Amino acid sequence: MLTKADFTAAQKRAAVMIRESGICISDEESQKVDVADFGLGRLEVEGAQILTLLATDRIAVKIIILFPRQTLPEHWHPPVGDDPGKEETIRVVSGDVRVYIPGEDNLKEGFIPAGQEEVYTMRNELILKPGQQIMFPPGMKHWFRAGEEGAVMYSFSTVARDILDGFTDPDIKRVTEIQEA
Amino acid sequence: MLTKADFTAAQKRAAVMIRESGICISDEESQKVDVADFGLGRLEVEGAQILTLLATDRIAVKIIILFPRQTLPEHWHPPVGDDPGKEETIRVVSGDVRVYIPGEDNLKEGFIPAGQEEVYTMRNELILKPGQQIMFPPGMKHWFRAGEEGAVMYSFSTVARDILDGFTDPDIKRVTEIQEA
Repeated sequence: MLTKADFTAAQKRAAVMIRESGICISDEESQKVDVADFGLGRLEVEGAQILTLLATDRIAVKIIILFPRQTLPEHWHPPVGDDPGKEETIRVVSGDVRVYIPGEDNLKEGFIPAGQEEVYTMRNELILKPGQQIMFPPGMKHWFRAGEEGAVMYSFSTVARDILDGFTDPDIKRVTEIQEA
Repeated sequence: MLTKADFTAAQKRAAVMIRESGICISDEESQKVDVADFGLGRLEVEGAQILTLLATDRIAVKIIILFPRQTLPEHWHPPVGDDPGKEETIRVVSGDVRVYIPGEDNLKEGFIPAGQEEVYTMRNELILKPGQQIMFPPGMKHWFRAGEEGAVMYSFSTVARDILDGFTDPDIKRVTEIQEA
């Protein structure tokens, strides 16, 4: 649950970060930035801001904005009917992003949100800088966390059906609930 | 046919334009910019520079760079097997782009390359500026031309099989031939 004021403040802050990263968006687009607290109610720790530039029944292009040290919770894109699941490539535009995927545990202490160790199971850490990218095949669990300056990145993918994503944390609700003032 | 020197010069010029547009690319990527004269041998008039950031069997992301007044010839993306054809969205990053699609003829005189009137049949003109985008459904004929300052744009699409694109001009060869010095 987010208050309307918190939602709007996060939306504005994200739009400023997009523009500071050098990406040109319209005023209309800046007002369409979605703010996701994943139902956890601690946006600054676990959450993400997402602007969808394009979403058809075949592809999607989004801008993901993370505030400093903000963590996007561990999730994966399951098969849906004939679709083997969303294939997604993240390409960093500004800031640096710690990405966690299957593989050897080389995660630095203190990078998992406090008390959430059980729902962040991928421990192979890569650090991506502007101009670097990584592809997540369908079904691959992943999560990421912005560095000290926050981060702006593109998500290029096949058709996005966010509501069907799987999350390791059973407390997560993908759709943000907004508390009207 | 392009000389190796012309190819390299166009590649370097395109990489500078990408970076001036605010997009961060690696040095390795800058050396992968493709230069297409479409076999017509007049690159500055009809041609394009293209950097593929991502190409899987499901999606593709490219940066298209056009020099001032350079025209990307009329073409379309046909069906291939079970695929209804490539769906492509162009989003402008810098400069302005005149896009031509089916519809009312409102094309300004002098915007078709001289002597090429017969192979530029789409005459409905839209002008896209940075942050604006347009989607071409599979099969829709389209061509575009940069303004006075050239242009940098993203192409977000389903799987790209450029070699199978259809071109209105029968003289076009999609693969650039390079004349070794």
